[in-house]
Formats: sequence, C-alpha cells, structure tokens
Amino acid sequence: MTNATLELAKELISRASVTPLDEGCQPLMAERLAKIGFDIESMVFHDTTNMWARRGTEEPVFCFAGHTDVVPAGDISSWHTAPFEPTVIDDYLHGRGAADMKGSLAAMIVATERFIEKHPNHKGSIAYLVTSDEEGPFINGTPKVIETLESRNEKITWSLVGEPSSTYKLGDIVKNGRRGSLTGNLTVRGIQGHVAYPHLADNPVHKAAPALAELAQMHWDNGNAFFPPTSFQIANINGGTGASNVVPGTLDVMFNFRYSTEVTAEQLIERVLNILDAHGLEYDIDWVFNGLPFLTGEGPLLEATKAAIKDVTGIETDPQTTGGTSDGRFIAPTGAQVIELGPVNATIHKVNECVRVSDLEVLARCYESILEKLLCPETQ
Amino acid sequence: MTNATLELAKELISRASVTPLDEGCQPLMAERLAKIGFDIESMVFHDTTNMWARRGTEEPVFCFAGHTDVVPAGDISSWHTAPFEPTVIDDYLHGRGAADMKGSLAAMIVATERFIEKHPNHKGSIAYLVTSDEEGPFINGTPKVIETLESRNEKITWSLVGEPSSTYKLGDIVKNGRRGSLTGNLTVRGIQGHVAYPHLADNPVHKAAPALAELAQMHWDNGNAFFPPTSFQIANINGGTGASNVVPGTLDVMFNFRYSTEVTAEQLIERVLNILDAHGLEYDIDWVFNGLPFLTGEGPLLEATKAAIKDVTGIETDPQTTGGTSDGRFIAPTGAQVIELGPVNATIHKVNECVRVSDLEVLARCYESILEKLLCPETQ
Repeated sequence: MTNATLELAKELISRASVTPLDEGCQPLMAERLAKIGFDIESMVFHDTTNMWARRGTEEPVFCFAGHTDVVPAGDISSWHTAPFEPTVIDDYLHGRGAADMKGSLAAMIVATERFIEKHPNHKGSIAYLVTSDEEGPFINGTPKVIETLESRNEKITWSLVGEPSSTYKLGDIVKNGRRGSLTGNLTVRGIQGHVAYPHLADNPVHKAAPALAELAQMHWDNGNAFFPPTSFQIANINGGTGASNVVPGTLDVMFNFRYSTEVTAEQLIERVLNILDAHGLEYDIDWVFNGLPFLTGEGPLLEATKAAIKDVTGIETDPQTTGGTSDGRFIAPTGAQVIELGPVNATIHKVNECVRVSDLEVLARCYESILEKLLCPETQ
Repeated sequence: MTNATLELAKELISRASVTPLDEGCQPLMAERLAKIGFDIESMVFHDTTNMWARRGTEEPVFCFAGHTDVVPAGDISSWHTAPFEPTVIDDYLHGRGAADMKGSLAAMIVATERFIEKHPNHKGSIAYLVTSDEEGPFINGTPKVIETLESRNEKITWSLVGEPSSTYKLGDIVKNGRRGSLTGNLTVRGIQGHVAYPHLADNPVHKAAPALAELAQMHWDNGNAFFPPTSFQIANINGGTGASNVVPGTLDVMFNFRYSTEVTAEQLIERVLNILDAHGLEYDIDWVFNGLPFLTGEGPLLEATKAAIKDVTGIETDPQTTGGTSDGRFIAPTGAQVIELGPVNATIHKVNECVRVSDLEVLARCYESILEKLLCPETQ
C-alpha cells in the first residue's frame, strides 16, 4: 500500500518555505481539500500567507491548525541529506519540516480525506487554520486570522494543533495547555560616583539586592492539576562601568515569568511593583506580554484525543502544559478547546530533522479517529 | 626678589618627563643637593629612575618624598599654553606637573637649601626619595627603593610627601593617612537552562541576591577619629546571555572595599567568605590588594606640620584620610610617619594644569618651618 501521508509530506518538504514563505504549500493542501468539499479562503497579511478552509456551516467546528513555514536549514554541510530534498533512510523521512510540522499537515489532509469518504454527512464542520508565520514574529499569521474570524463571529469549538508534542513514541504526550509568559525589563536608578566617596553616590545594586532576593524567593502560586507552580527567573542583570572604583548609576534587570492559570499577568505585575515599592526603589519598568496561559481541561476534545491515541497505539497519553509556546495560545482565548498532538520532537529546529515514516500513518489514523469520535459519535 | 622656587619649578616643567621618564629632573635636583652636603644614590629599576639622597647619618630621618614623572598632556590643542613650556599668566604658573608635583619638588629643594644655610649642624638626617613611576604601575618606583632601604636596615622616621593635598587654599588640608583598598572579583556558579524548565536550571542571580543584600547592608566598623567607617561598594555586576528565556549559568560581581585602620584586609576577606558560605553559594573569588591603610596620628610630624602651616599661613589645617592613593602607602608600612602636604589640586591631571606662583614660596616656607621644628627644636 502506498503511504499517502509520506507522499504528501515529501511534496511539502520539497518546497523551501522558510518563514514567512509558503512556497505553494497551502495551495497544494487547498487543492486536496477543495476536492472534498472545503471552501478555501487565502488570507494574505503583509509578508504572510494564511489559509482558512471550512467544510460545513454548522457547529461544532473542529479545526486542524498548523503552519507551512519552517526554520532555516542552518549549516547545510552538517546535513546528511539536502534539507529540502525529502529522503527516506531506513524508516525515517529526512528534511527540514519533517517533524515540525509538514508531516502533521500531510497526516491531517490524509485523515480528512479518509474521514470524508466514510462520513460525508458528518455533523458540524471541519476547518483548517494554516499560516506561514508560526516560526517568525507571529504578527501576521494566526493572530490576524483569528481576528478576522472573530470579527465575523465565526467560532472554533475544538482545535487540534499539529505541533510535535511527542517525546519518545508518537502519542506519549499531548499538550493540553501552555503557561503564560511575561517579561519585565527593570532599570533601577541610583547615583553614579567614586567608590572613595560613597556618601556622594547611591548604589542601585545595593538598593535592588534585597528586592531581587525577595522576588527570587517568592511563592507565586501552587499551580494546579495541569500546571506547575508559576516560576520567576532573572535572565539578565547588568550594572557598572567595568572599572573597580566607580559606583554604577543604574542597574538593568530582565526577568521572565512562566505562569499558570491560577494567576493573571496583571496580578503578577501588581505583586512585583508592590515589592519594588516596598524596598523604596526608584525605577522604570517595561512589560512584554509574550502569551496568555491556556488550559484545555477534561472535555470532549481531550477525551477524544486520549481515546484515539489509546485505540490506535495502545498508549495512555500524558497531557502536559510544559515547554515553549505555540500558536494554540492565539486560538484558545476565543473560547476554543485546544490540544497539540504531533510527532516526536527530538530533531526539530536541528540539522538532520526527521520523522519516522511509520509514525506518519499512525498520526493520520489518530487524527481520523479524533474526527470520528467528535463528529460522528454515533458510529463509535 | 627672585622667586627661587618658581625658577626651579620652571626648569623641572620644561623637561617632558611623562611616566616613566625622568628626563634629567632628578640629576638637576641631585646637583643642587650635592652642593649642600647630600650623598646621592641613583636607583634605576627597569624603566624607572629613582633617587635616594641623604644628608647626615643619624636618626631621626626626615624624608621628602615625591615624583618627577607627570601624566600625559592629553589634548594639547585644549591647552592655552604649551604643556612643557612653563608660562606665568597673572599669578599662575602653567604647565604639566606644575601642581602634581614639580612645584612641590622645587619648594623642597629651596626649603632645604635655606634650612642648611641657617642650620648646617641640624640634628638627625634629611633625605629625598624621588621616583619617576608614581603615576604609572608603581612597581619599580617607591616600592623598590623602600625594599632596598629595608634590606640595609635604613629607616625613615618622618616622611613628607609633596602630593597636592590642598583644596581651596594652600595648607587648608593635609593628608595624614589613606584608607586601604581591596577589590574582590566574585563568580557565583549556577546551572544554565531554559526559563521554561526551571527545575533543570539553578539561577546564580537568585542564589546570590540575598548574600549581596547582606554584604551591602553590613556594618563593617565604626571608623575612628581619622577614618570614616569602612565602605563596601559593588562596582560591577553581570549575568545572562541577553535572551529573555535563558537562565544564566554564572554571575560575575566586582566589589571594592575602602577600609579604615580598624579592620585588616584579612578580616574583611574572612567576613565576606563567611557570608557567601552561609548562603550556600558555589563560587570562585580573586582578591586584588590595592593598598594597605595607614594613619599618622598625633605625634611630632603631624604637630610640626600643623604648626608650620599655622605659622606661615595662619590656617588651622584639616588632616584628612579621604581620597585616592599615593606613594605614602609604600613608606608607611616601614613604621614611618607620613604626611602629604602640597598645593591646591584643582587642576591636576587636567589640561591647563597650574599652580599659584605665590603659593610656591608659601609652600617652601612651610617645608622649611617643618624642618626647623623637627630637626632643630631648640631654635623654636
């Protein structure tokens, strides 16, 4: 039997769609989806190509989400194969994007084709939200598509993001949420001077040290069943001229929160400012909101995903909220349930990125099974 | 009347003796001293020219100390006069080294000549310790001369250093000691990692903050009548890669003590290490010993200096221990009493360095008066 997912994955990998380029990946997917009844909308914002595709007009709306862009190949001489010439060696398909996430996109299309063939009259709708800007500044990609959908009150009920969630075996881990990320850029002001005349200077490092100690030791929350406790980390600290006899005039500190759904960014900011003020510091602070936390707790999407993985692979999957960010953070705030399920992520963003060929078929079957459990539960 | 001090100061300034060059300054002084009975020793160590001159073999030994080298002229176009062409404008002698410290050297010579003429049979000895390396790395200058004197058990009882100690009027301030200076270069070790996985990292900034807070708040001593309390200042602190998502692996901190004679460098080091250890830090630390503190308290030299200034100028001088370092720190550890008395220091190390012409004569009279008070008290 031909491996339909492998063939499509190879076609996608051969298009060198480094962020923000799409290089014809979305038209290739659109062509396949149009054939099985999807309406296709291309949404181009500045340099970014996005696709919104939908089959059906009813709710609930099940939406595959993903990206056609890939990170650069890096040092091509370190690759065993040309990064944009998909090559199967033993049971592995090599090429940039094989695991992150052209293999997943191929599995989605094949799963959808098979599902529609069996269940042309499924309930609700199936949709695709695909961008060419997930690895980039995430400005003109998923956020703009979501903005467009929201403006016309078009809702996503369940979103399955194809990010490579697995660690050792396909399906061993799914991501059912992500922590929020909040960065603070703090400048503590003092008065520069000569160390021989300390009474004329005001050392910002001395003033800040007890406040930083308190922030570092602070217990922010207990986390919850799905989130570890909120963590605070000082990533950078810099003060001084380099000379041993000059009291610095300012101290710069950059810190980052990874926070659970038990607190809000506003609460964290208030608590930080209270500590800085309690220590009498004079300071400026800028905040960078990197992403809100989200959580998809027990419910139809998580239940269907767990059951599908169990049915297809026999694995009891482990829902986690750790790790970095994904475009799921832009979909979840609309009220959608969001789960990430994709291949093993060991080689992503590295040279010799690859995905197990047999996993592509397993992933397609998992995706198909999730569709069946959610959109035609009567057949289960 | 010719101003003998002015004439000699001009001769010295016209020799461009930028560190470590002497350019014939010491031979000029030696010629004058030899004529009035001094034995001259030139001590050349590597690139540095030093002179040890002595009249008499008995104790007590009164030693004028100073340097013939000057700092570079800097931006010559900013000078109103050529820096090595001594020029009197109104009542000011302009030129590099006028205040620091060729004016003082000239005053010493003239004072000595006048004193010997009046008191050829003074008690004890008069000596000169002059180097061409005071503004440089202070390796082959005063420290090596002191080493030589110590090796032959030749002692200095009282040393008058010609550094420009005055602030507004000649004689308003003398330096009767200097604080010690001790620098610590601390590296706190942690484990670098991703902020999203804080359990795999160990943030050295978090670990160090409470220890730095404790060091910054520590009361080291109360100082004493002559010294302000010992002060601790963090001069530099640096940690982090610049990225907001990386926990730094190490934290570098450079701090400096200016310390009184109430503590020793060894005691300070022990107290710092105890605090670092109490906080469970893993660290490396290097210490730089910039200079031991010294103090010349009440005694013959301070008393003679105060009285001479009062006699000549009418000023009640203010003995201080503040400010930077001088070669006095190398002479004091031998057991000598050390005082610094010289012209107003407003222009030293700057363009348009100058000294008040009338102050040169006043300074020569002060020096002569000190000699009389110490070496022929019966005439007072």
